[in-house]
Parts: sequence; structure tokens; C-alpha cells
Amino acid sequence: MSENNTTDKKVVESRSESAPDSLFSKDRLYTVIFGTNTPAGKLFDLVLICSIFISVVIVIIDSVSSASASYGTLLIALEWLFTILFTIEYGLRIYCSPNRLGYARSFYGIIDLLAILPTYLSLFFGSGTYLIVIRLLRVLRIFRILKLIRYLQEANLLLRAIIASRRKVMVFFATVFVLAVIFGSLMFVIEGPENGFTSIPMSIYWTIVTITTVGYGDITPHTTAGQVLASLVMLTGYSIIAVPTGILTAEINHEMVLDRERIVCSNCHTSGHERNAKFCRNCGVSLEIT
Amino acid sequence: MSENNTTDKKVVESRSESAPDSLFSKDRLYTVIFGTNTPAGKLFDLVLICSIFISVVIVIIDSVSSASASYGTLLIALEWLFTILFTIEYGLRIYCSPNRLGYARSFYGIIDLLAILPTYLSLFFGSGTYLIVIRLLRVLRIFRILKLIRYLQEANLLLRAIIASRRKVMVFFATVFVLAVIFGSLMFVIEGPENGFTSIPMSIYWTIVTITTVGYGDITPHTTAGQVLASLVMLTGYSIIAVPTGILTAEINHEMVLDRERIVCSNCHTSGHERNAKFCRNCGVSLEIT
Amino acid sequence: MSENNTTDKKVVESRSESAPDSLFSKDRLYTVIFGTNTPAGKLFDLVLICSIFISVVIVIIDSVSSASASYGTLLIALEWLFTILFTIEYGLRIYCSPNRLGYARSFYGIIDLLAILPTYLSLFFGSGTYLIVIRLLRVLRIFRILKLIRYLQEANLLLRAIIASRRKVMVFFATVFVLAVIFGSLMFVIEGPENGFTSIPMSIYWTIVTITTVGYGDITPHTTAGQVLASLVMLTGYSIIAVPTGILTAEINHEMVLDRERIVCSNCHTSGHERNAKFCRNCGVSLEIT
Amino acid sequence: MSENNTTDKKVVESRSESAPDSLFSKDRLYTVIFGTNTPAGKLFDLVLICSIFISVVIVIIDSVSSASASYGTLLIALEWLFTILFTIEYGLRIYCSPNRLGYARSFYGIIDLLAILPTYLSLFFGSGTYLIVIRLLRVLRIFRILKLIRYLQEANLLLRAIIASRRKVMVFFATVFVLAVIFGSLMFVIEGPENGFTSIPMSIYWTIVTITTVGYGDITPHTTAGQVLASLVMLTGYSIIAVPTGILTAEINHEMVLDRERIVCSNCHTSGHERNAKFCRNCGVSLEIT
Repeated sequence: MSENNTTDKKVVESRSESAPDSLFSKDRLYTVIFGTNTPAGKLFDLVLICSIFISVVIVIIDSVSSASASYGTLLIALEWLFTILFTIEYGLRIYCSPNRLGYARSFYGIIDLLAILPTYLSLFFGSGTYLIVIRLLRVLRIFRILKLIRYLQEANLLLRAIIASRRKVMVFFATVFVLAVIFGSLMFVIEGPENGFTSIPMSIYWTIVTITTVGYGDITPHTTAGQVLASLVMLTGYSIIAVPTGILTAEINHEMVLDRERIVCSNCHTSGHERNAKFCRNCGVSLEIT
Repeated sequence: MSENNTTDKKVVESRSESAPDSLFSKDRLYTVIFGTNTPAGKLFDLVLICSIFISVVIVIIDSVSSASASYGTLLIALEWLFTILFTIEYGLRIYCSPNRLGYARSFYGIIDLLAILPTYLSLFFGSGTYLIVIRLLRVLRIFRILKLIRYLQEANLLLRAIIASRRKVMVFFATVFVLAVIFGSLMFVIEGPENGFTSIPMSIYWTIVTITTVGYGDITPHTTAGQVLASLVMLTGYSIIAVPTGILTAEINHEMVLDRERIVCSNCHTSGHERNAKFCRNCGVSLEIT
Repeated sequence: MSENNTTDKKVVESRSESAPDSLFSKDRLYTVIFGTNTPAGKLFDLVLICSIFISVVIVIIDSVSSASASYGTLLIALEWLFTILFTIEYGLRIYCSPNRLGYARSFYGIIDLLAILPTYLSLFFGSGTYLIVIRLLRVLRIFRILKLIRYLQEANLLLRAIIASRRKVMVFFATVFVLAVIFGSLMFVIEGPENGFTSIPMSIYWTIVTITTVGYGDITPHTTAGQVLASLVMLTGYSIIAVPTGILTAEINHEMVLDRERIVCSNCHTSGHERNAKFCRNCGVSLEIT
Repeated sequence: MSENNTTDKKVVESRSESAPDSLFSKDRLYTVIFGTNTPAGKLFDLVLICSIFISVVIVIIDSVSSASASYGTLLIALEWLFTILFTIEYGLRIYCSPNRLGYARSFYGIIDLLAILPTYLSLFFGSGTYLIVIRLLRVLRIFRILKLIRYLQEANLLLRAIIASRRKVMVFFATVFVLAVIFGSLMFVIEGPENGFTSIPMSIYWTIVTITTVGYGDITPHTTAGQVLASLVMLTGYSIIAVPTGILTAEINHEMVLDRERIVCSNCHTSGHERNAKFCRNCGVSLEIT
């Protein structure tokens, strides 16, 4: 998706150089809606993100029964307003996109469609309780905001560290899951249905609640053997919590060292400068000019 | 604020050199009240910090209903005593400050005023329950104690590490918040009001309780689907707890390496000595003379 | 066990070169059942692992009382089917193993036998509730899947880090246990049986629940002294959680550095390359050819 | 204390060389009781540690009301047996110590006395419930076992790391405490006594339960404002948990690097060998001979 994005931007740039004359041309619209490096494009993105935020807040407020009772009509009106705005936006995106099917099939294209569908569907099927399930997908639209932070160097560093450690973390989670099954089964046998451990799945749920140190207390061991095993589960959870931390810390540390290596002096080619360094630590030449 | 502080100290030093004659002069008072490098200034700060601590303890004790019933009059008397003491202190600070408006507008100036206001206001509005809200701000005065630890090298190292990692931590918290909204909405749809998930905000509260592994147990999933999703939320929380740890560890590690780099031998210019090193690890010359 | 495995594989290879003619010979069977580097051997392992997974899932489903009532006969039939399949597999393993007693006595040999015994025993002793205890050991068979990840470099790195830190972690857990006994005893004296702390073992259980930050809330302090001590226990747990993390992070970090050291250029012998490096960072020769 | 220990051992060695003739001489007894490098001394320490363990287990069992009712007489008899044994041991220590007052005043001397006193005191004051408080100090005797691990290199490394990070951790805990007071006071004002937040100390207790992610659920926020603030407290706890981990990880990492630096080849003086290295990584000479 990142590559696709880069080509998009190139297209935007080449276009905006050649044909910035017509005000509402396809190209100009494309630059504003899809681009992020013109003032109009930035403004459009900001307004859109705010609209998404407000529409999500409306869904959240609507779920509060007292608010829904008092301001029900207003909330429905606002929901329709945003649905129509998002529909126009979706239409414009389809219209101005050079590769229409490509956009419609892309991740954000599908999310954009799914974000407006439920309100229209509620016309035909009534605003039933189950329909909220689909309406909820609009919340996923927040992820479009993450596009912004994609440009933040920090988020990139974190992402690289997480990607580099994904296999180790998967090995870790497989182990946690196996442990949860074994401990859960043992607890089911030891404690039994009379103490709330009604089935092995329920016991596995309890084990995950315990091993992650969440500890709701909705199900707790009552027999001595159960409490001894529970203590073992807790201490296991307490110690293996260290594993993902260790993996990620090592990766982040390594990425930060690499980051510093990347700042190279244009004069003497010395690397390893601090991120906020302004002058080469070897020859004193300004690093900013580079 | 740190820069302002340095200039303060310089003023104090230059003044204390020129005019240490008059006992209760403005300058002498300034040195004692604002300065921290004369014996009198140190004593004043110590007494003040103790007074703040005691006055905070009195507010805390006063909130215990049994103590309030038994020693109510004494506690009110003590509160007035400290209020009057702090008022005199505030007056003296205003009086001897070379830049009165500057002090009154500074962070500590505002806190100093807010710490004495509520007790006086209680004269006009009665000691109603809601007034405690304002009285509470006095607790913030404890932060003045943190001035002391500002000088500790250790606190500085931690602070630098936290500042260096602030952007990464913000990216992390934004992600946690987005996850809380999505998971919270899903739980509201799956579990519904009959299981305690009365609204999306309430579900988001539950998600934060779960994802941070606090797990009160006041709201718990009862359906199988809810428990599966809850397990997912817990495992997510369990693994992403590693992210801030990784960020901060990497930064602290880096700051500690930098700290060691700063200790340079005056003879052979070798750096990288241990913090408790007494002699240069390369040429054996004492590091202390420097 | 790892060494034993290597010799096994060597035997497999030498055999498969000399006698791949007879279809159901001992040697061919050995290659398929014990080996993992022929297509047939890989398929056999995959099918076996799936069967174990399904049989474990059946045990789990059987524990759900509603499922057991509806599909009881089907579940029992499936359980017998897998038991017979695993019995045949166990028989073939004994038959084709060059060192029969060695296999039967090995860790997986014992697990293989224990996985099929309980179902047969249920014929003589009836399908009583207590028999599930033995049946449960079949869940341990999942560990055979871990054989696969043994080949993953990542799991090896984690394992090496855990082994390297085992002594430090043991020292840590001994300290935690001593603390739990002392804090538990103190809480028993302070809170007493009337607040749920019915005995020192129960108080130690509470201390472990608290020190690991699980916090069920089934037993909570009610006296002021108890709450002060509980706060101390929590803060202790909160801070010592850092110790295993610190140990493991340091070890994982060190293992990762060693890992990079292991990638050496065949041309200029420069080490310290990134894991995903394709060319030597010093002389530019491809690292892949090595 | 560590230095005192070294001189002790030297005394033991010099004595055991000069006068190993008389069987129950003061010197011989001293070697057995205080020393740890003769077979008899090792056996004595092992027996003593086992006795302490058993006597602690008896106190723990005695606290279980059902066990106390059934085996009360036996438990009291065993307690008296161990008390007499420890009294004899204490007498012998006093008798054979070259510096009697020094031993009696040392940390272990006081613990040794306190471990036997409560049982004797129970003769005069009756075995009342409150007396258990004193009896409990015997549990602290377990710390004598920690003497053993003092020799483990690993425990030393951990201890050095903890000592090196003690000032940073104290700064951290002061901050946590200040936060707990402020958040606790705010929650008291927001939630009030009707929701379980009966006083500021109780609210501070709740804040510590929450900020350490223990989360009993005995007190939970019920108002919307309270839940918002509680979410903030949880996220604060979730993120600041990273600080002690970061500090300790950095210190342990540094100590481990120092540890490797300490292994120096006797031939070519190259340092930085792995802890399990057998040969110098530079010249190939065995490191073990050194």
C-alpha cells in the first residue's frame, strides 16, 4: 500500500504542474482529495478527519440510552448529514480517481463504502438493534487518521521494531496459548463446575484472565489445590510478561542505533550522530545543509 | 522555567555578594526565600516543604469522617494556621521579588495563591462540600518539592529519557485509544446492556480496565463470544505493554551511555568512564581533580 | 534429546539412500514416521499434528456440559477413533524404531503411551469424572508441535536467552517466594480470619495474587493497617516486575548482537551484518552464496 | 557485613590450620558453626537451613484452623523442639564466637535471638492470639538462607544492578506517591463516600490498587467523571510501569557488559569473552587455567 501511495503522490505532483488551471477539473479534485502536499489537500484531509471523529462520537453518544432518549432525533439527523457528506466524498473519489476499480477495491475504498452503507440499509430493514453491528465499522475509519502518523519517523521506527519482532512474538503467543490450554484443563479437573470452572473453554478463559495478570475475580479458585495451581499460573504470567518486553526492547534499541547510523556527515562521512545533533561530531560541519 | 531559575540564582549570587549587610532587607529576604544555596535559604525551603506536607496530611486526615468528628476543631485551627503562614509567605515573596508580576504569573506563583484562596473563600461561602474541590489544589504544592530532585542527576537522566521518548509514547497512546474505541464498540454489540455493557463509553471504560490489565471485575463478559473477544483484548494489552517499556528502556540505556561519555579524563581525553570511577581507565590520572 | 534427534536424522538419511525400494519396509516406515525431511515424512507429521489438535478440541468440547448432552455419542465415537489411530501410530513407532526400548523410554514415547491409555482404562473403570485427569495428559501432545518451531531461528534465540537467564530468574523467584511468605504471614496477623485471611497459606495465596498484580478481589484487606501493608505489597510487586524483564531483555539483546556477529562475509570476513542483509556491508560481495 | 564475613572466613582458615586437634574446642566449634568451607561446616549449615524451613512450615500449618485443631499438641511439641534446638545453637554461637558482643549485636545475632524469644514469652503471657505477631519474626530467618546465594555470581550481578539503580527508583516511587495522593484526592471529591471512596486515605489506597494494575474491584468508580479519571489513572500506571523496567534493564545490561569485560585472557590480555567461553577468542589459549 505504501508503494501505491508513492506513485499516487508522483501522479499528483506531475499533474499539478501541468494542469492547475481548471478549478473543478478531475485532476484538481484528485490533488485535493487524494493528495496531501497542497494547502487545499491538507485542509480537505483535516476537515475529513474531523468529520469522521464527530460521526464516531455521535455513534458513541447514541449508544448511551439517556442521551438517545433525549436527543434521539438530533442524533439521527446528524448521522444522516454525515452519511450524505461521506456519500458525496465517496462519489467524488470514484469520479476523480485515475484507476477507479483500483480505488474501489483498495482497503480504504472498501472501508469508505462500508462506512456509508449501514445507514442506507437501515431504511429498508428498520433501525433494529442488530444493524448497529454493521454501523460500527465506521469506527474503523479512524484508521485513516493513522495515515498521518505514517509520516512520523517515530511511528515508523516502532513499526519496524514490531515487524522485526513479529516472528518471535508469534512463537511467544503460541507458547502462551498452549500453556493456557494445559493450565485451563488442569484447573477444570481440580476445581470443577461447582467453583465456576464450568467447562474447559471457561477454564481457558480464566487462565488467560490470570496469566495476563488482568484478574477480574469473576471466577476464582476455592480449593487449596486450585489456589496452588493458580499461584503457579500467576507466577508464570508474571515472568513470561518479560519475554515480549525483552524482544521488543532489543529490537527498538537496535532500530534506534540504526537510526543514528543513518545521519551521516556530508563532509567527512562520519555516522552515529544524535538525532538532535546540528553539527558533525567529527569535523564540525553543519548536518542540516545535507 | 529552568532558564528562569538559572537567572534567579545568578541574581541571588551577585546580590548576596554585594549586600549581605542589612538583616531584613529585600535582597536578604529574596536570597532566603527564593535562593537555595545559602544555609538560611536551605533551612527556609526545608521548613516550607515540611509545612506543605503537614498541611496536606491535615487535609487528608480531615477527609476521614471519624477523625473529622473527633478532632474537627483542631483540624480547622491547624488549617487556618497554615493558611495564615502561607499567606505571609506569599506576601513576602511578592514583596521581595525583583519582578513581582513575573512571580505572580509564574506556575509556582499561581499555585501559591490557589493554595491559600480556598480557606478564605470558605468564610464567605461556608465550608460546603463542594469547596473541598478547590481546597484540594493545595496538594499540588507537593510539586514544589520536586524542585529539589531537579538537581539530582538521576532525575534529570530519567526526564531526558522521557522527553526523548514522548513522541513515540504519544503514537503508542493514540493506538491504544483507537483500539479501546473499536474493542469497546464490539463488546457493546456482543454483550449488550443486560451484561453491564450499558453504553459504548461504558464499554470503552471496560476495555481500558482490561487492556491495562487492571481488571476490576465490576463489568465482566458473560457470553462466549464476549469472553473470546475479552481474551483477545487481554492478550493485546499483555503484548502492547511491552511497547512503552521498550521505548523507555532504549532511551534510558542511550542516556546512560551518553552520561558515561561525558566523564572525560583531563589528561588523555579518554571518555566512557564508569560513573563511580575515580581514576582514568587509560592513563590512571585522578578524574576528581577535573 | 537434541543430540539424539540429530543421530536419528543421520540414520534416516543413510537408510533412505541405501534401501528406498520396498514400500512398507521398516526403514521406509521409520523415514516417514520419525523423519521430517522427506515429503512423506512432512505429510505424516502434518496429519499427526492436525489429529492431535482435533482430538484435544474434542476433549475441550466434551467438557462443555450442553455440548456433551447434545453430541455425547458422536464425541465418544470420535474419541475412540482418535484413540485407535494413535494406538496404531504408537504400534508402528515401536515396530520400526531401531532402538525400541530407547523410544518407549523417551519423553515423547511416554507421552504417546499416556495419550492412549486413559480411553482404554475407561473400559474397565467406567467413564468416571476422575478419569479425565489422566485423559488430560493428551493435551501435552501439543508440545510435539513445538518440535517444528525448534527449527525456527527465532525460537532458538528466545530459548538461548531464557536458558542463559535461568539462574538469575531462579534467584528472583526465590526472593519473591520469601517475600510472599513474610508478607502473607504479616497480613494474616493484621487482618485475621474475619476478613478472609483464614490461614497463612491463604494469606500467601493473597500475597501472590497481589504481588503479581493479578488482584482477583476475592480476598481484600479491610483494616487500615492491612490496606497500608497491601499498598506496600503492590508497590513491591510493581517494582520487582522489572527484574525478570531486565534480565531477559539484557540476554535477548546480547543474543541478538551475537546473532549478527555470526553472519560473516566469505570474502573479507567482516561480521555484524543485519539479519536481512544481502550484501557485505564492507566489500559488497553477496552474503547469500556462502 | 560482607567485609566482616571475609575476615570471619580468614580467622576460620588460620585457626583450622593451627588447631584441628581437639574435637569440641572453641575453635573447632567456630569453624563448624560460623564457617562454610569445611565439610562439617557445610553439613551444619544445611541442617540448620532445613530446620528453619521446617519450623517455618510448622508455624504456617499451625495457622490453618483445621490442622491446628487436629494436630495441635504435635505442632506445639515440634515448635518447642525447634525452639530448644535453636536456643542451643544460639548458646554455642555466643560461646565460640571470638567477639561475643559483636555477634550478639550483628543482624543475624538479633534475628537468632528474636527467633527463640516468642515461644519462651508464651510461657509467661499465655499463647494468646496477639503473641503470634512476635512469633512471626521467625519467618525472617529464611533470610539466612540468602547467605548461600550471596555466593552466586548471578545474585551479585542483580544486587549490583539494583544498588546502581536505587536512586532512580526512589525518584520514581516519590513521583508515584505524589501522583497517588493527587489522583486519590480528586477521586474522593468526584466519587465521594457513597461510592466506597469513604476518605482520602481510602482513595489513595484505591489509586495505588489501580496505578499498579492490581485492580481488586472492592472499590470501583460509579460516576462517569470517576470512570474517566480512573481510565486516566490506569493509563498512567500502564505507562509509568515502563520506568523502573527501563532503569533496571539498562543497569543489568551494563553490569552484564562489565561482567564480560572482567574475563581477560592471561596470554594476550583480550577481554570481552562470553561467560561460558573456554578459550580466548583472540589467541586460542584456554581461559580456564587463569
